[in-house]
Amino acid sequence: MSREVDIVRAVADLRARVRYWRDQGLAVALVPTMGALHQGHLSLIAQGLEHADRVVASVFVNPTQFGPGEDFERYPRREAEDAALLSGAGCHLLFAPQVTDMYPAGFATTVSVAGLSEGLCGAIRPGHFDGVATVVTKLLLQVRPDFALFGEKDYQQLAVIRRLVRDLDLAVEVIGCPIVREADGLALSSRNAYLTPEQRAVAPALFRALDATAQALAQGGEAAPLTARAVEDLRAAGFDAVDYFELRDAETLAPLDRPTRPARLLAAARLGATRLLDNVAVTAL
Amino acid sequence: MSREVDIVRAVADLRARVRYWRDQGLAVALVPTMGALHQGHLSLIAQGLEHADRVVASVFVNPTQFGPGEDFERYPRREAEDAALLSGAGCHLLFAPQVTDMYPAGFATTVSVAGLSEGLCGAIRPGHFDGVATVVTKLLLQVRPDFALFGEKDYQQLAVIRRLVRDLDLAVEVIGCPIVREADGLALSSRNAYLTPEQRAVAPALFRALDATAQALAQGGEAAPLTARAVEDLRAAGFDAVDYFELRDAETLAPLDRPTRPARLLAAARLGATRLLDNVAVTAL
Repeated sequence: MSREVDIVRAVADLRARVRYWRDQGLAVALVPTMGALHQGHLSLIAQGLEHADRVVASVFVNPTQFGPGEDFERYPRREAEDAALLSGAGCHLLFAPQVTDMYPAGFATTVSVAGLSEGLCGAIRPGHFDGVATVVTKLLLQVRPDFALFGEKDYQQLAVIRRLVRDLDLAVEVIGCPIVREADGLALSSRNAYLTPEQRAVAPALFRALDATAQALAQGGEAAPLTARAVEDLRAAGFDAVDYFELRDAETLAPLDRPTRPARLLAAARLGATRLLDNVAVTAL
Repeated sequence: MSREVDIVRAVADLRARVRYWRDQGLAVALVPTMGALHQGHLSLIAQGLEHADRVVASVFVNPTQFGPGEDFERYPRREAEDAALLSGAGCHLLFAPQVTDMYPAGFATTVSVAGLSEGLCGAIRPGHFDGVATVVTKLLLQVRPDFALFGEKDYQQLAVIRRLVRDLDLAVEVIGCPIVREADGLALSSRNAYLTPEQRAVAPALFRALDATAQALAQGGEAAPLTARAVEDLRAAGFDAVDYFELRDAETLAPLDRPTRPARLLAAARLGATRLLDNVAVTAL
């Protein structure tokens, strides 16, 4: 039986715990999450344990990264289940702050990353990445970990975070972790819970389209016709809309015609009100 | 004879020095400056030495806080003299980074503080406080001091920095230090060097106007007529323009009619192309 993970809510308590570890010379990893944990998150905990002696998970549904009309209110919150999963995964501490502690009256500061925040999901969700960049900066400064682990599923988010960590001289190593998938290829996501059985049956087409397109690009195909074809296939498979399906530079996210340098194929597509994100690496030519 | 201050330019060297002190249990203070040091800066070093065991001064003329047409190019740079002054003041380390190290290719991150950055100097210098907030965040994360000291002369800047430190959970205590003045009341500033002898003779009128207005406010006077009168007096004394002369809440910088809570009287006025800033505390009614 695994030890139960301790839960702290106040930054002062969090810091006291981390300081105690530091004083023992232990390395600390942070896994920031919005809760509703699944195997993707638990793989981040496992990889955190490979890099560090102690792993802190944060669970915070950050209001500032949700736009008007998005799913902030109905985003799944289930702390008891999350704590049990974290305990089973060997996580050492759960930091679960309150919104009013993260953003007290008078809060006025925003961290923003130009360029990287602007296209793809940034175009669909204005302000989203400012919310992400600000809360991640806060979490990194609250915990001050040696390592911070993020899933590649939110690939643009990972690029934004890598950039801000470098730009602001945050002394943390950012580790991007591979996407964890269902047996049929669907990328794990807390939002998959929103899907009806019919939508769930359609959902794996997104990964199949990414995978097939990536293979065609690696064989010398050009992005524009291949991605246009993928969008058509997704509509035919039952997706209600494809927000984007694009080949981008793996680091700068600049658009690419061909994978002439490290590249990523990124997509967002909707089933009803649910947006699914996914992406795959593309072998450079 | 005082020991000569060591100079480091690379963040890695800076951090090695600070880590060495930390490992000995020594407290560290940072005094961020743009160089062209005067007695105001040296008073910050002295107050840093009162709070901490080791004092780091940074000298960096930050391009991102200068607007087009401002004095970035001609801002005085005299590192040898600065280093000598810092040595004499007992400063332990001078951090003097290059612009290309602070803002390498691809740099894209901005820290901004809404509200506090917007009026007063922020209205005259759009983007100025974003530049300040970003570079101060970087310096605080590069040095990771226990204390950071800033002069009250740049009072709005101090308010912006206090806010971002709180909002981003930076583990540093910000200490605002009293304005150092010439015998005739003129607040020390590196930009005073721009004044002609004639302008220099007019300059002390700014402090006299602030001081007289603060006294009238403390006796129950209303801000609007008193500050209007002060603006007239400054024009009559020889100032070419008064950018602002306002009573504000000491913390939020919200406009006030009377000093019903801790308040600050803030002014900016121009002599030719040179803008002088000054401010005084106002005794609350």
